[in-house]
Parts: sequence; C-alpha cells; structure tokens
Amino acid sequence: MIGSMRELVEQAKSLPGKRVVIAAAQDEAALGAAVEAERIGLAEPLLVGVKAEIERTLEKLGAPKDKFEIVVKNEEMEAVGESVRLIREGRAHVLLKGKTKTGTLLKAVLDKERGLRTDRLLSDVFIFDCPFRREHRIMGVTDGGITPVPTLEQKVQITKNAVEAFHSLGYEKPKVAHLSAIETVSPGIQSTVDAAEIAGMYKKGELENCIVDGPLAFDLAVSKDAAEMKSFVSPVAGEADILIGPTIEASNILAKSLMYTAPFEPGHVIVGARAPVLICSRSESSEAKLNAIAFGCLMAHWQEETH
Amino acid sequence: MIGSMRELVEQAKSLPGKRVVIAAAQDEAALGAAVEAERIGLAEPLLVGVKAEIERTLEKLGAPKDKFEIVVKNEEMEAVGESVRLIREGRAHVLLKGKTKTGTLLKAVLDKERGLRTDRLLSDVFIFDCPFRREHRIMGVTDGGITPVPTLEQKVQITKNAVEAFHSLGYEKPKVAHLSAIETVSPGIQSTVDAAEIAGMYKKGELENCIVDGPLAFDLAVSKDAAEMKSFVSPVAGEADILIGPTIEASNILAKSLMYTAPFEPGHVIVGARAPVLICSRSESSEAKLNAIAFGCLMAHWQEETH
Repeated sequence: MIGSMRELVEQAKSLPGKRVVIAAAQDEAALGAAVEAERIGLAEPLLVGVKAEIERTLEKLGAPKDKFEIVVKNEEMEAVGESVRLIREGRAHVLLKGKTKTGTLLKAVLDKERGLRTDRLLSDVFIFDCPFRREHRIMGVTDGGITPVPTLEQKVQITKNAVEAFHSLGYEKPKVAHLSAIETVSPGIQSTVDAAEIAGMYKKGELENCIVDGPLAFDLAVSKDAAEMKSFVSPVAGEADILIGPTIEASNILAKSLMYTAPFEPGHVIVGARAPVLICSRSESSEAKLNAIAFGCLMAHWQEETH
Repeated sequence: MIGSMRELVEQAKSLPGKRVVIAAAQDEAALGAAVEAERIGLAEPLLVGVKAEIERTLEKLGAPKDKFEIVVKNEEMEAVGESVRLIREGRAHVLLKGKTKTGTLLKAVLDKERGLRTDRLLSDVFIFDCPFRREHRIMGVTDGGITPVPTLEQKVQITKNAVEAFHSLGYEKPKVAHLSAIETVSPGIQSTVDAAEIAGMYKKGELENCIVDGPLAFDLAVSKDAAEMKSFVSPVAGEADILIGPTIEASNILAKSLMYTAPFEPGHVIVGARAPVLICSRSESSEAKLNAIAFGCLMAHWQEETH
C-alpha cells in the first residue's frame, strides 16, 4: 500500500518501461514534466507534434534533444489522433496533454471507433498525502474536473473509477465517503438522497472491493473525534480514503483548498478510459506534474495486470 | 479593521452591555458557551427555559447559579417564542440556539408577525483567520448552512449578507469571489453563468461597498501567484475576503476543510434577520463558540448603529 506521494513516485520508478505520450508536445509545461520524468527515471516520453517547436522548447528547457523520440505531426488534431493511436497499439501507456485544449483531447479519447473509450464515465481523481490522520496514507478527492452535476448513475461510476485508482495504489478496500453538507437524508438536499442511495447499493453488494457510506458531512468523513462527539457510527467515519463531492464545484474547491492549506503537492489523473489521461496546467508545480505522471504509470500498470 | 479572531473577541468585549438570549437554555453546549462568555466579560446571558434543568446544567458546568437571569418557559415553543420576543423588545441582541432544533428556531425567527424577519434571506457566514495571506486578515465562507441550491437572486442576497457581516468587522469594501470549478463562463456549469451575472451587476453599480468578481476557481481567489501564472486579471484575484460557494455543499465542505487543515478556530453566524442567530453544535470547540458569540455581538452592534 502506497502511503505517501514520495512512495508513489518511487514505486512508479520501479515499473519497467512505462511510456508517456505527449499529444502536441510543443508545450512547455507538458514537455518540462516529461523531461523531468525521463531525467529521474520515472517514464520514457514519446513526443508527438511539431518537430522544430518541440526541439526549440527542449533547448529552452536545457534538455538533450537526442534523448527523445519525436513523431512528427504538424496539425493539432493529427497529433492528438496519433497519440491516442500509439496508446491503442500499446506503444505508450499514459496520455499527457500538450498544446491542445482539454476538450479536444477528451473528444479524441472518447471517440467510439478510434478512441480509448470504455463503458465508463471519465472522472478526475485528485490524490495527496492525507493531512488528517497520523497514519501514512494517501487521500483522494473526486470528481473536480469532468462532470458538472453527476446523476446518481454517474456518481456510481465516479465511485468505481476512484476505487480502481486506489486499488492501483495498493488499497485493497478503500473507504469511500459521499460528502454532503449534512449527514442526515433531507429531500431538500439532493446530494444526501443520492449518497444514501449509493450507500444502500453498497450494502446490497453492488459495489465491490471497497467500503462506502454517505451522506457524510466533511468533518465526519475525516475526523474520528467529530464522529464520536456526534455519536455518528459508520465504517467510513474518520477514516475515509476517498472523498466524493456531490458536484464538480464542491470537489474542485475541496481539492484546491487542500492543496493551498496543507504542505504537500498533489497529483491528479483522469480515469475511466483505456489509459490514464493527464492534464498538466502551467500553474501546477513541477512536483505535482511528476506526481501525476507517477500516478498515471501505476494506474496503467494496474490496468494491464487486471484487464 | 479586525485582522484576527483574537481581535474579534477583544473588540466584542469592549462593546457595552451586549446580551445573548438562549432559547431553551437547558442545553450543555449552549449554556457552556454562555457561561464562558459571561466569565470573560464578552456578553451577558439571558436564559430562557426550564429552570430546574438550567440550574442543574449550570451546576454541572461549575457556574454560579445566582449570576444568571432565568426566564421560566417550560415548553420548547414557548421558550423559543419568548427568546425572539426579548430580542424584538431590545432586551437581548443575539439569539443563541439551546435545546431546540435549528428548524424550530429559524421558523420562529422567520415568523411574519412575531419573528425577526427582514426582506433578506437568511445565510450562514463562516469566518476565520485567513490562512492564505501574510497580512493579518479575516476570511469568510458562505453559505454552508441555509439554502441548498441558491437561485441567482438568493446568491445576490447571500452576497449582501456577507458584505454586511464584513462591514461589521470594519472591512469597508470587502472583496467577494463567487467560486466555481473554473474561471471561464461555461453554459454547462450554471455556477459560472450565475457568477458572471453577479459580477455584471456589480459593474453596473448594483452591489455597493464591496468589490465582486466571478467565476473564480479557488486557486485564483486565494493565490496571487496562481492568478499571475494563468494571466488572470481581476480586482479580487488572490485577495478575496469572502468566498461564496455555488451550493450549500460546496460552502459547507470548504468551510469544514479549512477548519480541519488550518490551525485556527472559526466562528459562524446566521445573518439576514433583525438579530444574529447562533447555532452552537456539540462538536464545536469552546473557542469556536466564543468566536461565534463575539461575531454575533459585533454584528448586532453594527446593525443598531446603521439601521
């Protein structure tokens, strides 16, 4: 079981020959992350895009040009399509967004014929060193990136995606809290109704290899003291590994507030496709980008082993 | 301008003769807070409820019985009604929930004839020492307690309530960020549309004595570095005093995550009625309860001065 982001990177390094393909690689943020991943022996980058621009950016980054394989595709759509194809063919394992829009990349990923689509919804899983417990653990927040107002069925898929992501980190039965503003079911707050429904599905055995409860207010999910004071009994209370927010805003705001208050760097990966998809933004630190690549490599390895 | 929760309590102490009435005072959490507020010279409690039970609880708390005025009301509804009446008559300034449900208390507060209703929506304003800036400042999060999915008009009222609360703390023109998952307007994410609409109202001069912007992702609201890296220009970016979440869950989860990650105690008050209403839960620390009472006293004082 991986207990920290540092261990995550170390474990990913030990995996053999993981390849990260960068779609439209002439992007400084993405290329910087890839160069660093190569330098520390985390993954081997495969660069798809405009050769001259890629070489210029490599030079700017002080990286040796001859170390990287470049697949020349001058058009954005072509570069994205080729990157997806390289993953389908098994020549790369993780897809990293370069100089293209997230929407364009995800459209190619979701293409029914040529994409990496599965029967799953895509969702963004944010992970970081858990700041709430003494034990050495990773905590996840989802989905702060893809589905604005998930339906009940979509929340189930978001749950399954996050649980698989945690399986890839070695958590056999991750504890999942469906968050709301309160811990009682109130018809006026739809998220409490949905959370109770999903907890019910778990009790009926419809969600495997995890422990699920909800609705939980945030304090009950992360603090045993709060749960005790409120006499709230739940197998997840105070021990949640995965926090599922009811909307994209709730999850996004939570993940970012944790990033800015706790002294650690996160990593996030879009899961639910045939391969992990990474979106590195300029405002993410270089450490966060490496964490994302490491997380992607572990997910890809786990997917290969189990599917 | 009050720069910290410690200053908040000191400033509230300096106000003359503030009275806190406790509705159904035979409640250990509420009575404990009131006893402590009296002891440190923050406010004078007025206890409405079942005399024998109140006296028993005072004894349990080690508080001198003869120091507190008790108004005998044995029925819960009567105690709540009497407490509200005492505020209408000016005999108390802040309403503190005792052994009654939040719903029962708020119903009495909102009663058209005998309540404390104004033309405003009620909303919960959470405040705490701002963990994101070097300067000595208070930060607010709202509304994590009252309206599940506020409409545009309700979001405007939530904004006005929070701005008034910050005026009572001496912030002449508080900076308000309407949060979402992203900072661009996207029809698929209603909160971005609403936030842009409210920012537009501000630009037209419809929101006074504050500076409002949105939609802002959390990082842009609290971090100047993030705003610079994303070339995001806004008078609120990196300097938000008040964070407005798009739903009750987003605000509640954000406020609680800040409570659990940052090393400080918050305080929260329900504003929008003729007097501040406080809900102290058992799981709140005694410091948080005193902070809420201090915040309530300052709000009440400000309301008296300005209305």
